[in-house]
Amino acid sequence: MSDHTLAIGIDFGGTSVKTGVLQRGTVIEEAPRIDTQEFESARPLIERINETCDDLRSRHPGIEAIGVGMPGFVDFPTGMVHNLTNVKGWQRIYLKRELNELSKLPVTVENDANCMAYAEWKRGAGRGMRNLVALTLGTGVGGGLVVENRLVRGANYVAGELGQTSIDYQGPAGAYGNRGSLEDYVGNQQITDLAHQSFAEAGKTRDRSECTPAHLSDLAEAGDAVALKVWDAVAGMLSTALMNCCWLLNPEAIIIGGGVAQAGSVLFGPLEKHLRDQLSAPFKENLRILPARFSNEAGIVGAATLALEEAGFKIDG
Amino acid sequence: MSDHTLAIGIDFGGTSVKTGVLQRGTVIEEAPRIDTQEFESARPLIERINETCDDLRSRHPGIEAIGVGMPGFVDFPTGMVHNLTNVKGWQRIYLKRELNELSKLPVTVENDANCMAYAEWKRGAGRGMRNLVALTLGTGVGGGLVVENRLVRGANYVAGELGQTSIDYQGPAGAYGNRGSLEDYVGNQQITDLAHQSFAEAGKTRDRSECTPAHLSDLAEAGDAVALKVWDAVAGMLSTALMNCCWLLNPEAIIIGGGVAQAGSVLFGPLEKHLRDQLSAPFKENLRILPARFSNEAGIVGAATLALEEAGFKIDG
Repeated sequence: MSDHTLAIGIDFGGTSVKTGVLQRGTVIEEAPRIDTQEFESARPLIERINETCDDLRSRHPGIEAIGVGMPGFVDFPTGMVHNLTNVKGWQRIYLKRELNELSKLPVTVENDANCMAYAEWKRGAGRGMRNLVALTLGTGVGGGLVVENRLVRGANYVAGELGQTSIDYQGPAGAYGNRGSLEDYVGNQQITDLAHQSFAEAGKTRDRSECTPAHLSDLAEAGDAVALKVWDAVAGMLSTALMNCCWLLNPEAIIIGGGVAQAGSVLFGPLEKHLRDQLSAPFKENLRILPARFSNEAGIVGAATLALEEAGFKIDG
Repeated sequence: MSDHTLAIGIDFGGTSVKTGVLQRGTVIEEAPRIDTQEFESARPLIERINETCDDLRSRHPGIEAIGVGMPGFVDFPTGMVHNLTNVKGWQRIYLKRELNELSKLPVTVENDANCMAYAEWKRGAGRGMRNLVALTLGTGVGGGLVVENRLVRGANYVAGELGQTSIDYQGPAGAYGNRGSLEDYVGNQQITDLAHQSFAEAGKTRDRSECTPAHLSDLAEAGDAVALKVWDAVAGMLSTALMNCCWLLNPEAIIIGGGVAQAGSVLFGPLEKHLRDQLSAPFKENLRILPARFSNEAGIVGAATLALEEAGFKIDG
């Protein structure tokens, strides 16, 4: 089979579902988004997703598989979605089976952060690597791990939750009772809070809307001392969780995507320094810290690529 | 090949080298220990180790392989030992090649904590599991990881350093500049320090020699409130690093060995509680926290078992 094989990738978000056709690692058509809030239960939404797939398949007859990335835990072998917090009626939904029955295509369902990691590993910044850590920095912090050339799923297929790991055993209790979880320090809101407070303490009070990561990176690039200090603090906290991954897994690369990562060098510079200051030689000699190749399309690319591999097609791309 | 195949396991410690013959997962003979401090350089010590092996082989003619567990980083494919801090002349020593040339047997060299993990995975508390975290609690904290049915070695074969992971991003800088490393909180000395301080604060000052983990577990078992509180604090710190492994790797089991683990229920009880309080359902539903099966012989068993597998023998034991 050649890499010209087509697949559909579905990026299922909290508010909308994006669907696209992947060919040789490129999204060649994206369908109009589906608004999840229009649906009161899972089945009608799955049917709408299938209609969108049918529409794409009518124009791209070579589609061989469908992959779906979900914003929640998935039982990988059965493709059962445990629970979605923001979408009505999604408790224990056997999405793989239902979408397969409707579409008659092989369907693969996986957690969205794992799809992002898969996209970077197979098609992006981590191509050819056997060991990598991928994370997305945004409202939350998502992660995916590749160890010894395999995506790590774990005993119950829920591995890779980098955002829930702790950087402070005495920190405040988070969503699952876990103290000091990374997500509670370097999520969008937390960075904004820290910036807002830091400007106030420096006697340069700014409106909260001017303290978002995007504003903060503009200010840092222009040399603003407070903004630079905030990014350094964020990098310090983030480096702790990543350093832990390095000591545990000794990866070749850490790949960072998501909105916050668009801060670029004002984040990556201090992050690299903090990491290298806290690792011994064999852990950092060949370690690379890389920006993700894919941004908004990571979910579609990863889900479609995973679906093709699960359906037995070889990925050369 | 049957599991009756014999192998030599060597547990290379900072002060002495233990050598034993493994048959069906049992150490059937252990040779007199070699004192590492008698040797000024690596070569004479390697020759002495080989003489010990020859002696064992003269009585057990079926020995097929030699495995060595080293207290330091090892380049697994070449069996090169990077550096030993407590033994003279051990910098970049190609132990695998040298011992193979002397013994004419297949030789495997691996980090000692990985050997312990291997022993538990193949012959001990983790038999049949595909995902586990193993750690030894003693003077230091060592670790070994099994992910998707493979021992995790990483890009430079140094993975599994659980003791170096951080539980506090603002903690004191450790051996490699890493802040808040677990080993600096729950090593033997640190537990003794914490106990000594806790008794003093409670107005029940005890001599430092009465504050060791062994004494402390006796006191806790007898109901001493201070000792129980110290073990709870140790369990809390330890649980943070283990919780991080769970969020990242979703293992089936955490297996704990080493001297400190002999504290038993006064440590395992609160540890299990702290862990379960900080994990979401799919991470803890099937999670087991188990004492290691092997204690002093873990290194010999693991190294010998690994050597047999690397030499192509099947382990049924």
